[in-house]
Amino acid sequence: MTEAYTDIDQLAVNTLRMLSIDGVQAANSGHPGLPLGAAPMAYVLWSRFLRFNPTDPHWPDRDRFILSPGHGSMLLYSLLHLFGYDLSLDELKHFRQWGAKTPGHPEVGMTPGVEVSTGPLGQGFGNGVGMAMAEAFLAAHYRRGDASPIDHYTYAIVSDGDLMEGVAAEAASMAGHLKLGKLIYLYDDNLISLDGPTNLAFTENVLERFDSYGWHTSRVSDGNDLEAIDAAIRAAQQDERPSLIAVRTIIGFGSPKAGTSKVHGEPLGADGVRKTKEYYGWNPDQSFVVPAEAAARAREAGARGAKLQAEWQQRFAAYRAENPEAAQQFELSFADKLPEGWQSALPSFAAGTELATREASGKALDALRERIPWLLGGSADLAGSTKTPMVTDGSFQPGAYGSNVVWFGVREHGMGAALNGMAAHGGVHAYGGTFFTFSDYMRGAIRVAALSHHPVAYVFTHDSIGLGEDGPTHQPIEQIASLRAMPNMLVIRPGDANETSFAWQAALENTHGPTSLILSRQKMPTFDRSGMAGAEGTLRGAYVLVDAAGGAPDLILMATGSELALAVEAQAQLTGQGVRTRVVSFPSWELFLAQSQEYRDSVLPPSVTARISIEAGVGQGWHRWVGDCGIVMGIEHFGASAPYKEIYQHFGLTVSDIVNNGLHLLERSTT
Amino acid sequence: MTEAYTDIDQLAVNTLRMLSIDGVQAANSGHPGLPLGAAPMAYVLWSRFLRFNPTDPHWPDRDRFILSPGHGSMLLYSLLHLFGYDLSLDELKHFRQWGAKTPGHPEVGMTPGVEVSTGPLGQGFGNGVGMAMAEAFLAAHYRRGDASPIDHYTYAIVSDGDLMEGVAAEAASMAGHLKLGKLIYLYDDNLISLDGPTNLAFTENVLERFDSYGWHTSRVSDGNDLEAIDAAIRAAQQDERPSLIAVRTIIGFGSPKAGTSKVHGEPLGADGVRKTKEYYGWNPDQSFVVPAEAAARAREAGARGAKLQAEWQQRFAAYRAENPEAAQQFELSFADKLPEGWQSALPSFAAGTELATREASGKALDALRERIPWLLGGSADLAGSTKTPMVTDGSFQPGAYGSNVVWFGVREHGMGAALNGMAAHGGVHAYGGTFFTFSDYMRGAIRVAALSHHPVAYVFTHDSIGLGEDGPTHQPIEQIASLRAMPNMLVIRPGDANETSFAWQAALENTHGPTSLILSRQKMPTFDRSGMAGAEGTLRGAYVLVDAAGGAPDLILMATGSELALAVEAQAQLTGQGVRTRVVSFPSWELFLAQSQEYRDSVLPPSVTARISIEAGVGQGWHRWVGDCGIVMGIEHFGASAPYKEIYQHFGLTVSDIVNNGLHLLERSTT
Repeated sequence: MTEAYTDIDQLAVNTLRMLSIDGVQAANSGHPGLPLGAAPMAYVLWSRFLRFNPTDPHWPDRDRFILSPGHGSMLLYSLLHLFGYDLSLDELKHFRQWGAKTPGHPEVGMTPGVEVSTGPLGQGFGNGVGMAMAEAFLAAHYRRGDASPIDHYTYAIVSDGDLMEGVAAEAASMAGHLKLGKLIYLYDDNLISLDGPTNLAFTENVLERFDSYGWHTSRVSDGNDLEAIDAAIRAAQQDERPSLIAVRTIIGFGSPKAGTSKVHGEPLGADGVRKTKEYYGWNPDQSFVVPAEAAARAREAGARGAKLQAEWQQRFAAYRAENPEAAQQFELSFADKLPEGWQSALPSFAAGTELATREASGKALDALRERIPWLLGGSADLAGSTKTPMVTDGSFQPGAYGSNVVWFGVREHGMGAALNGMAAHGGVHAYGGTFFTFSDYMRGAIRVAALSHHPVAYVFTHDSIGLGEDGPTHQPIEQIASLRAMPNMLVIRPGDANETSFAWQAALENTHGPTSLILSRQKMPTFDRSGMAGAEGTLRGAYVLVDAAGGAPDLILMATGSELALAVEAQAQLTGQGVRTRVVSFPSWELFLAQSQEYRDSVLPPSVTARISIEAGVGQGWHRWVGDCGIVMGIEHFGASAPYKEIYQHFGLTVSDIVNNGLHLLERSTT
Repeated sequence: MTEAYTDIDQLAVNTLRMLSIDGVQAANSGHPGLPLGAAPMAYVLWSRFLRFNPTDPHWPDRDRFILSPGHGSMLLYSLLHLFGYDLSLDELKHFRQWGAKTPGHPEVGMTPGVEVSTGPLGQGFGNGVGMAMAEAFLAAHYRRGDASPIDHYTYAIVSDGDLMEGVAAEAASMAGHLKLGKLIYLYDDNLISLDGPTNLAFTENVLERFDSYGWHTSRVSDGNDLEAIDAAIRAAQQDERPSLIAVRTIIGFGSPKAGTSKVHGEPLGADGVRKTKEYYGWNPDQSFVVPAEAAARAREAGARGAKLQAEWQQRFAAYRAENPEAAQQFELSFADKLPEGWQSALPSFAAGTELATREASGKALDALRERIPWLLGGSADLAGSTKTPMVTDGSFQPGAYGSNVVWFGVREHGMGAALNGMAAHGGVHAYGGTFFTFSDYMRGAIRVAALSHHPVAYVFTHDSIGLGEDGPTHQPIEQIASLRAMPNMLVIRPGDANETSFAWQAALENTHGPTSLILSRQKMPTFDRSGMAGAEGTLRGAYVLVDAAGGAPDLILMATGSELALAVEAQAQLTGQGVRTRVVSFPSWELFLAQSQEYRDSVLPPSVTARISIEAGVGQGWHRWVGDCGIVMGIEHFGASAPYKEIYQHFGLTVSDIVNNGLHLLERSTT
């Protein structure tokens, strides 16, 4: 049994509530309902269970906390302030204002103590599962005897909306399968969503559903009952399954519109704030008040956490003494660094062989996994196809968490959210694979990765009509343009096996955000680089693969991926017809844009306006590179089911089409 | 009790199996495992339950059948051939070949009897839920006394992969809530997915999960037991809940690699085909054999269906006699037509008022729903925000299916898949709303809509940084570019309230595919059109809103949505500084591209190279319109949380930024 909760605890709970409604009211924007209802469970968790050190939010072995319904952000900011993180009252007063550390929805990197960016519902739920997977992996990977430097819980508050989202369903099923016992979620079960009562659309038996996934479930009938919440969390800690605790709350508790959707997403208004403060016995004429006793009580938790971290540091020192290599790995990985000279692990491929870039990627990944054991990932039931590891014996499974090969199941979105959680957890470098067309399924999570600068690597294979017979449902057309449109996203579509190795290098060196590797199903020639530029040009995004002989080029062909070989063939033919033709391999717009203007002009000289781009996807965006006089060769419609070479012919993407366009263009631009 | 199944039935089952493996072998590509395992359940369903007329695949009251694991397409093609649809044996022999009606995955519109395009897992599951919703709505809407021209079942075969997908989870929860009792799914429970046994990642208790959603569940322990499957379907028909029947099958049954993932996605090979035929007692030297008795037996079902349709037609004639208006509506809607003169229902808005385009959209939609009662849709728990109908009393609910207002819950992907099912069902025109940023969540379903030419309307509001305080998780940046990249997708971002009315007109007139209406949260001026062009120019995609006074323009400003008003203000200032400036309102690239070159050149004369585009999103693709000399004003990074006007300022999207760029551009292009 723990100590009983007292009036001071209740005062602290109400402090969270009052800070939250004051913040929303000051911004005249935000969601007061969730904090008023969920403050008690948050307080119990933070004051009695969560192990954290507010003065070092990056302590690797801290417990993780996620507010999955990110619209309740003022609750999180109030918690961070009250519990002693470096988030001033002034920041709370500037909730949702330009430059404040208190944006409308929590954003990782903006605010100390915010673990992940939440708001798009279901993502935080999935992030927690990824964190618990990372924790389980690291705990096992670094365990020596009884000692491991990682051993913590992952907690979240989740909402009705989270639980309606498919991404959460996928992640929940994964967590149940994996028996992630150190994952504990408090469900703010308030029966209200933004438009009204949840029973308009959501009458399933949630706890029975989680039972079916293999979770431990329990119910707290009064969300204001601190002791009951405490007991439920304690029971969850004892269970070897992941836990969902449904806590029945009243949205907007204590406010005039309590229990209705009107209090979900709108400020209470001056009068509503006043009445709510009166309900709680607070002075309605004051705002942003933090009673000293409440603050002192809350700071006790942080002080305990600081002590726990100090003890952990002692243990880690002992661990380092006995296991210097493991300890070094641990520190390297949590510093987001890679082992010295890791690039030398990347394979190079002999010319003359035909190899799909997915195959080359598989070989690169195998080599990298050998060198970087904390490369953690897998695929959404497409390992055999994406050439991510086909490890079935010895994969990451309940009781065998030391493997770095995960089976995500046919759950792309859940995989995406879990990868984000792994990246946010730290200590691992996360990757995941599926067919490129199914990147659509995980786009919600991909966007969060980009927004959060998570360095996740996506292995997207079967990248175009080149996959052939599976047909248009499986043939990406617009996906490459749509990923290039996403800020912070690095897209690389390598043109042969050796470019693929460098693409992996770029992916692992990229700390700015996620990387999408766009890889072929079909075989492609491995270029003989003796008469060509080396594949390291990949790292610059675009480079002159083969230049025109005998002077400045008349024509530039630029291509990516499997179309690069077509451009090379076309160049030979055009040269034969006296056209001085340069071939630019252009695997990545983003890497090219990061080069100097001088370099870019050297690859694409402004004076050469006869330009053709070739890519088996929509042309959107290529006009920028070919210019007003150029030709964009792409596909402006969906694909077709047939052997792939036939599709290329019917769609006008052949060597002779390129040659004809080149000749046509030069006639046109010379007249 | 039904008649017992005989050897002839078994022969017909095996015919489906043999045709399927022959098709895969001929293509040397495809998935033989599913047809071998699932042929018995498919046969029972088609021969004894499914009401269809192979000579009229569009009979409105037919039962619907979906093969959700579309990779098993050869099973569906074999069924269609055997049961008498217009799909020749020759088409089966050309499985997955250019121009054949038998593409790698089923595509609606390509093959008679294929109801929806499947392959991306989970979509077919969700489509069936949408079909059952449409059926329930139409049955209630057209019921007069005891008579309704719609009263049918929706069946599907679903797979492990479907059930792992979040989109199916969302749709299942909706179906359970809505008590869609005429929805019956057969689960091909074969314990194998593409990479190996499902227990690598999928060990949840599926039936318990579906119980929790409010489904009727049952189990058939031997997937070859025709009688048991029959009994299970019969019991499902009697239940008022949707039904999931788990049928334990053996993937690749009868083939050498039966029960393993090796038979999932690869042809059996010549030897494997031979051995499989030997197992079934078929001549291994023959392929594409259809025994006459099997064909005759299968044709009995179609003959019964034709008789059922004839009876239905008699009943419908009687119905028409008594309810001529309802009957006319019914026929109109199933012909994908709208009531004569429906456009007159669209509101026009007085100049001078400030109105968010989401508000204008809400008014347009209210008026349209009045005029077109079969406009069926709703939102993903954001009706109050997207201004889709906020009908809580009298919405589409169990036992009250006559309402055309659906609550989808916080289930964007499930909504998207259901909308596709509604569109595929026919008789309704489907729409759905959410925040534009969450279009990412439903992109898998949106793509199927585009591929299938489903005329679904998406109401995407909160379309940019203009939503303000909610911050970057909620501010679309790249979504507009990524939707424009999708073939068959019509994207319209109207520039004021009156353009919004015409945007709705374009959406409902669009029969080529889905339409995305991109609408503002914030208020925008309603232009005084007396000195400007009329808003009907919206229908042409781009038009000259305000032209330069006193001669050909020096400069063209083109803008969409909320940035149009900025361009108009900038034009006034530039005119004051002697710059002859044209403002082009450019709500839709796709509509503009559909215009004649002559019209396009009249709006954007090639001679005017000083051009600026202004849109609060990524610039990708705008270079095509502004050309090499132009300036793309957009946002190449994620947003920020603050009042929106501040964000516009910080991001350089103000009237003075436009003016400065215009002046700068003219200096540059005149030097």
